[in-house]
Amino acid sequence: MDYRGKFMVKPGEEVKLSKIDPDETFKTDKDAETLELTAKYTKELTELQNHLYAENRHSLLIVLQGMDAAGKDGVINHVLAPLNPQGCRCQPFKAPTELELAHDFLWRVHRAAPRKGEIVIFNRSHYEDVLVQRVHNLVPKEVWSERYELINDFEKLLWKSGTTIVKFFLHISEEEQLKRFKQRLEDPERNWKISQSDYSERTYWDEYRKAFEEALSRCSFNHAPWYVIPSNHKYFRNLAISQILADTLRDLDMQMPPCKVDLEKIRQEYEQAAETIRRKKQSGHL
Amino acid sequence: MDYRGKFMVKPGEEVKLSKIDPDETFKTDKDAETLELTAKYTKELTELQNHLYAENRHSLLIVLQGMDAAGKDGVINHVLAPLNPQGCRCQPFKAPTELELAHDFLWRVHRAAPRKGEIVIFNRSHYEDVLVQRVHNLVPKEVWSERYELINDFEKLLWKSGTTIVKFFLHISEEEQLKRFKQRLEDPERNWKISQSDYSERTYWDEYRKAFEEALSRCSFNHAPWYVIPSNHKYFRNLAISQILADTLRDLDMQMPPCKVDLEKIRQEYEQAAETIRRKKQSGHL
Repeated sequence: MDYRGKFMVKPGEEVKLSKIDPDETFKTDKDAETLELTAKYTKELTELQNHLYAENRHSLLIVLQGMDAAGKDGVINHVLAPLNPQGCRCQPFKAPTELELAHDFLWRVHRAAPRKGEIVIFNRSHYEDVLVQRVHNLVPKEVWSERYELINDFEKLLWKSGTTIVKFFLHISEEEQLKRFKQRLEDPERNWKISQSDYSERTYWDEYRKAFEEALSRCSFNHAPWYVIPSNHKYFRNLAISQILADTLRDLDMQMPPCKVDLEKIRQEYEQAAETIRRKKQSGHL
Repeated sequence: MDYRGKFMVKPGEEVKLSKIDPDETFKTDKDAETLELTAKYTKELTELQNHLYAENRHSLLIVLQGMDAAGKDGVINHVLAPLNPQGCRCQPFKAPTELELAHDFLWRVHRAAPRKGEIVIFNRSHYEDVLVQRVHNLVPKEVWSERYELINDFEKLLWKSGTTIVKFFLHISEEEQLKRFKQRLEDPERNWKISQSDYSERTYWDEYRKAFEEALSRCSFNHAPWYVIPSNHKYFRNLAISQILADTLRDLDMQMPPCKVDLEKIRQEYEQAAETIRRKKQSGHL
């Protein structure tokens, strides 16, 4: 199954989330086969990351969005944690600070963009500026309605400079969200995380859905696609995302850079150094 | 075995690296028992990280230093990669940029310090300013010789604000370094990493050792200790470091924060929400 083809929002397509089943699994089960396949893609991803780092030409920006409890943290823990932490960075976006608010809405986002060779994961992103800000009227409609185009321009700039952008909307049902909230409630280790807003934000479900639909419809391009990932089943979400990321990086057709030095000469130098150490050792100086 | 007690540089102690055996393993073998013990500490570390994050009072700064090929990347890959990437950041320090050089030497370091709840790993650090800068005379002796005190003051500032600092010197022999360089030479996947400076820096071995000895001797305190880790054997290095880190975090005696909300009220609200969803479903609206 080619999940990129299945889940990508085609440029210009009008997304209707009610038409996309968050329970979809394409007949995969949470069995050994599925878990092995996910592990295979995850392993390939770490190898491709090594090439990305070595080649130092491309970078990868992964955007994670979704309702509360949709699984953004879960994706980071299960799919992305195996990446080498030296070439991978997680960037959360919370309510903007005073300094951030004193700039345009993309300022803090641009500062967090990946450098060449790096993978950066946005846990929430600049899309919050057309989601929470729209739903709660934090800025007037004249302001947020112009942001789609500004976002598209911004992402084109990143893409033109070698950044591959992949955006995931983790699609869960209201029922599944409630189930996950209840699980948090029953787990004493996670009680401290529960805030009143978990509950109050729920009541804006329909407004958020509308806001997501507009963002997904207006901001998906071949160079910066949105994928709507059915995410009620975590194992399937992980499978689909790991496949999409591996496919995306594989397509960059990266090459290991050539060796910068004369290996033969270095080899000879090492032989000499080894000989020196041997002699030092024999004479008791080491 | 208490590796903290064994390997910590006692405040005021004069370190002689030639007296510390880089092959030391305290009779542990690379067997199932050792690997399980390392895995146990690593697992504990991820749990303690969760508490660190939840409590949001402390932060942890891990400094990794050592000769080239001493295993800094290896420690990150094996001991620290399992940490949750959302609360953990790797910060490499390379040759300073023009902007960084236009500031005091601790400016770029301070910017990279961990926030509360966060673990930050310095791959090299401000100690390079009394190592490479000293060995290659990049600054005059009057400048670098005053830095030890400035470093101690800086680390005290971090400590006073809730940052636990743990510094590891990965101690390998010249022979082991050469062996590892040769392995890189024989591995085509890693050939691109080899630079002429790998070889040329080797010839400064004694100068680096002297510079390390002074830094270790002058900058180890109970609140910001240096540990000299025998690192010729990678499995032992990983065991010792994972134990020291777990012991250090455990000693912080962190508490999960109290719940911020009235759980009973939230539970009732969820029951009502679940009922609403059930009714919506029955009436075909979901």
